[in-house]
Amino acid sequence: MATQGEYAKTKINAVNRYRGRGKYDHETIHALVNSVPVLHVSFNVPLPDDDDESGISYPTILPMIGCMSNYRSPGSISAPQADNDNDNSDEPPVLYLHGYISSRLIKQGGTNTGLPMSIAATSLDGLVLALTPNHHSCNYRSAVLFGRATLVSDESERMRAMQLITENMLPNRWNNSRVPPTKVEMQSTGILRVEIDAASAKTRTGGPGEDRADLKDEALRERVWTGVVPVSLQWGEPVPAEGNRVDKVPGYVEEWRVGSNAEAVKASTDSAS
Amino acid sequence: MATQGEYAKTKINAVNRYRGRGKYDHETIHALVNSVPVLHVSFNVPLPDDDDESGISYPTILPMIGCMSNYRSPGSISAPQADNDNDNSDEPPVLYLHGYISSRLIKQGGTNTGLPMSIAATSLDGLVLALTPNHHSCNYRSAVLFGRATLVSDESERMRAMQLITENMLPNRWNNSRVPPTKVEMQSTGILRVEIDAASAKTRTGGPGEDRADLKDEALRERVWTGVVPVSLQWGEPVPAEGNRVDKVPGYVEEWRVGSNAEAVKASTDSAS
Repeated sequence: MATQGEYAKTKINAVNRYRGRGKYDHETIHALVNSVPVLHVSFNVPLPDDDDESGISYPTILPMIGCMSNYRSPGSISAPQADNDNDNSDEPPVLYLHGYISSRLIKQGGTNTGLPMSIAATSLDGLVLALTPNHHSCNYRSAVLFGRATLVSDESERMRAMQLITENMLPNRWNNSRVPPTKVEMQSTGILRVEIDAASAKTRTGGPGEDRADLKDEALRERVWTGVVPVSLQWGEPVPAEGNRVDKVPGYVEEWRVGSNAEAVKASTDSAS
Repeated sequence: MATQGEYAKTKINAVNRYRGRGKYDHETIHALVNSVPVLHVSFNVPLPDDDDESGISYPTILPMIGCMSNYRSPGSISAPQADNDNDNSDEPPVLYLHGYISSRLIKQGGTNTGLPMSIAATSLDGLVLALTPNHHSCNYRSAVLFGRATLVSDESERMRAMQLITENMLPNRWNNSRVPPTKVEMQSTGILRVEIDAASAKTRTGGPGEDRADLKDEALRERVWTGVVPVSLQWGEPVPAEGNRVDKVPGYVEEWRVGSNAEAVKASTDSAS
């Protein structure tokens, strides 16, 4: 079940270029965040005091793993939300990120409500080939979210976020592995909670736009192939670890792998026309 | 031919977490930028003056298309660099980005040498499944670059950048489409030139690390499959545009498509063990 609702359109998230491609609804945005395996996050942190560099201040950008707390991908989130269902349109959207960002950075760069951060979830769906290079384009679905990140210190929230992120990546893995994590394991795991303040999504689908003069040029049209080459992330044959003792790749892994691949091919192909 | 050389390790780009995974050489970083079809860029721009929002300042993050000017991917860049070869280790590394960022933003957020920007090139190569969720991981190659962006106004540089970006995406497309672009087309095309000040790359390969206690737990090991599920971007069957008049997908498209797919499968599978 998707969350209801929509992000308000403000100066922060308004899509200005190709306005018609902009979307603000929770469902589109949260589904995209949860289906893209790697997110990119960006934030500002001051360099250490003893800095002798140029003095130019760059934002930081990092790939990270994460998922929305209150959006359930169809058929993908199992145990965690059945136990602790907060798939609730009244709850403000929260993104959990997994990975190491030192608490020093969070405090240095943050306000008292957290470290301002932007997060991108991007799915490239196809390369669009037109008669002339300047009309070439990409099909894509892209979401950008703006929020404030804090380190999660509450142990049960950390555990729930770990479970959500694991299940979002590979459904049924949590219960099919050694759980719960030990105290020591959980202490060395960094979980960021990002309260989302604004977000928008942008998509492009379909074939190429063309220049009018090019369309009238019959010789050109007989010479240049135009169309879309769809592209998708495809999971390959599982490679057992050196220490693996289980002969057969489990059904839930194969089901997820083959199902995700088929869905991704369909989505990219559908977006081509 | 790859560029020689290496980025200096400074406070801006030093890899601190899992230090052993860090790389600074031009070849690794530039090859990754040129092989990843979508880059993520991040920069800071002030909101408009009449802003009545919260006053929190978020960095902007955007997916964009681009390539390094002075790195030639093996076998991929053809015409542009043969004509105008600057594959030269003495030239400072420059990244060209294609896409719309208004000159207002560039000026508002920039110093007099350009808009400070960070760029991520990320390739997810596999999902690493361990006995317990907290040892799960991802195999990846990731580069982060820091630089200053200016809008390219010189017409011949814009043209060359367009050609580089087109050829980097799909070799031989430039000469197999209607070129050169018209003056009007080039005027409506935004090209950013990013002078790279610092950069680093990080990779993870191989199977899962495990907890010692888990490895001694025979029942657990008989129950939980461990290993890597490789993943790669795969280009699908080309979909002709409605107005396409060329029956057969051209050889250079199929060669690129099938070749890229095979390379990507090999890279992700090789990284799994």
